[in-house]
Amino acid sequence: MAKFQIDILGCGSATPTARHQPSCQVVNFRDKLFMIDCGEGAQSQFRRMGLKFSRLNHVFISHLHGDHLFGLPGLLSTMALHEISGSVTVHIFREGARLLKEWMDFFNRNSPFEIIYDIIEEGERRTVYEDSGLTVETFPLYHRTPCNGFIFREKPKPRHLRGDAVKFHGVPVAMLKSIKEGADFVREDGRVIPNAMLTSDPDPCMSYAYCSDTMMDSRVAEDIKGVDTVYHEATYDDSMAEQARERGHSTARQAAQIALEAGARRLIIGHFSKRYNSEELLFREASEVFPDVILANEGLKVDLE
Amino acid sequence: MAKFQIDILGCGSATPTARHQPSCQVVNFRDKLFMIDCGEGAQSQFRRMGLKFSRLNHVFISHLHGDHLFGLPGLLSTMALHEISGSVTVHIFREGARLLKEWMDFFNRNSPFEIIYDIIEEGERRTVYEDSGLTVETFPLYHRTPCNGFIFREKPKPRHLRGDAVKFHGVPVAMLKSIKEGADFVREDGRVIPNAMLTSDPDPCMSYAYCSDTMMDSRVAEDIKGVDTVYHEATYDDSMAEQARERGHSTARQAAQIALEAGARRLIIGHFSKRYNSEELLFREASEVFPDVILANEGLKVDLE
Repeated sequence: MAKFQIDILGCGSATPTARHQPSCQVVNFRDKLFMIDCGEGAQSQFRRMGLKFSRLNHVFISHLHGDHLFGLPGLLSTMALHEISGSVTVHIFREGARLLKEWMDFFNRNSPFEIIYDIIEEGERRTVYEDSGLTVETFPLYHRTPCNGFIFREKPKPRHLRGDAVKFHGVPVAMLKSIKEGADFVREDGRVIPNAMLTSDPDPCMSYAYCSDTMMDSRVAEDIKGVDTVYHEATYDDSMAEQARERGHSTARQAAQIALEAGARRLIIGHFSKRYNSEELLFREASEVFPDVILANEGLKVDLE
Repeated sequence: MAKFQIDILGCGSATPTARHQPSCQVVNFRDKLFMIDCGEGAQSQFRRMGLKFSRLNHVFISHLHGDHLFGLPGLLSTMALHEISGSVTVHIFREGARLLKEWMDFFNRNSPFEIIYDIIEEGERRTVYEDSGLTVETFPLYHRTPCNGFIFREKPKPRHLRGDAVKFHGVPVAMLKSIKEGADFVREDGRVIPNAMLTSDPDPCMSYAYCSDTMMDSRVAEDIKGVDTVYHEATYDDSMAEQARERGHSTARQAAQIALEAGARRLIIGHFSKRYNSEELLFREASEVFPDVILANEGLKVDLE
């Protein structure tokens, strides 16, 4: 079955600790890799998890805080060393692109490896990537600096042919593609065979929304409405709700409330404050609001299929 | 006894691997910490080795290749978070200071933590740090981009008093300091007691030279002449001597030859190419030339006393 998997490379906040790396995830969609955020050490985690640089062509940076992008110079330089003639697209706010370009133009000046910059504007809602099977959209989050989230959506899949019916009505091979796409079949005798008689529903389309960093805001639930799996930051527990809002972050309970409002099937929480020696409390508080909560952890792989 | 210790945080080359981190060392001189080079992940290694950010006030960068400084943004941002009102001096080539300042001015813009830049000029020989017990000098290395090494020298220690002789000749307490510094003692009856009768030699002064990255060059041996312990890069084995020179690097044997020419007591080799799954070969080839060779390794602590 087609692969749609989330790999957690880092789920800590602010600074790396003995327990957690700074923010970084990889979405593995049918063996194409998409990185979201790139904290320091991302390239080492990437290698440790057995991922291949040659399959990584897009990096999405949510905002310009160091713990979400200080791994970029190392990652991009290593890619430049490994695939001299390759390229990668970095989706990032304008000032981040400027700062990154200054460094890469200097440190990779002897490599033809190409870095393409796709500028995300503050508060922008746009499709930032699309191929035959996937779209990636960006949407605004509500942090203390401009911050955008990303939604990965699998495109609709072809309907399943009913072999017996197809054979019975003598559908020519040349028409099978359009039938899979939902077309009815008109027989030579003029009789119309409705698509529903020839096919059954396709597999459901999976989707994944990345929401870090942000305070709790119902506009986020609106933007990710109906998504299958949500990653939402959960930096603090209930007792820190006030500090969370001041600092533009969320509590685990608030993350669960957003997942609930969005009608999501599953919630992954992360971006844990280093004050916690265990995330049990965060898990409990989120689970009181939302049924299917997963605690992010370095090395965790979540299969969306 | 006064502490003078070298901590190896990273001794790999080019890119981090499963076996080695990029270049980073910490010189611990009487609990003041001095970092030499700062590859990606340095701050995590620093913490892992139980070192204290509050004791780190100087970072020396040998040259402007990413594997020697991509850890700086993370390290400096973490220090800015931890010791809001502190400061650190980064000793680095001019272009490196410019690029680093651009990033830090943006990413640490809300912190009063101060970063002082000490510009090292290409090929410069100069004392870049001095306190009551230590000097740090910089000197040129011979890589494919401007590169400088660093020598840490303990200042001369006071001579040891011979308690019996001091007592016998009735040396007043007020004079003991000057006697320890080598002065003779003139008794009231005018007789001069030579210092040698009142003191014995002080403990030897330790010194440490850091030489990475560089091709083998006798000018390096000249610059570090008489140093106690030498770290010299040993990227390759004998069979790669030609590539080593082309790439501005050294073989393990060449590193040992430089240590021998310099009259050093001990050699630490590192900056290993990722082509080696074991550095045994490098150790053997260096040991054929020089008696006391140590293989660098992450977590290794070398006590110079």
